[in-house]
Amino acid sequence: MSQFENVTVVKAANVYYDGKVSSRTVLFADGSKKTLGLLLPGEYEFGTEAAEIMEMLAGDVEVLLPGETAWQAVSAGESFNVPANSKFGIKVKTVTDYCCSYID
Amino acid sequence: MSQFENVTVVKAANVYYDGKVSSRTVLFADGSKKTLGLLLPGEYEFGTEAAEIMEMLAGDVEVLLPGETAWQAVSAGESFNVPANSKFGIKVKTVTDYCCSYID
Repeated sequence: MSQFENVTVVKAANVYYDGKVSSRTVLFADGSKKTLGLLLPGEYEFGTEAAEIMEMLAGDVEVLLPGETAWQAVSAGESFNVPANSKFGIKVKTVTDYCCSYID
Repeated sequence: MSQFENVTVVKAANVYYDGKVSSRTVLFADGSKKTLGLLLPGEYEFGTEAAEIMEMLAGDVEVLLPGETAWQAVSAGESFNVPANSKFGIKVKTVTDYCCSYID
């Protein structure tokens, strides 16, 4: 699915790390939420509230997931899951486009 | 209006200048199109096809519009128009969030 139809988009960007990480919030009729985001090269840490599914649309990263000791490579077309109320590290190798789904 | 309702959002980001400029495309039921974009500090040049209205949601820039010789400051809450089939320069001072409307 290359586009989301019949959705609501919040105009204001979500901006982190001086804009090297940014996203837009997309709200669905069923009450669910996703963000479409861009990560510039760098290393970041994020905390979750809801559990997340991070779908890589483009780019290459390594992630350090909660409870893991090894960084794991994730590339375009792949995804990874992050538990609720946790933190994860991400090393962004190339400009990375993602879609994040929040699971209540 | 802080959000767009009943729209279609293209998942893939539009990425320029190594990701320092990026946007997402929003399609409206009436056939019109807008992009929601983020500009990181830097200096850029863009070309237009359709005429554009650039609404500044956040940030500070200076723009050099077609036919002008002076850079003009534009800040959050303001907007500027760019004619079709032209080029304009933009110096981005702080992370800038914008909404661009395309006028056919």
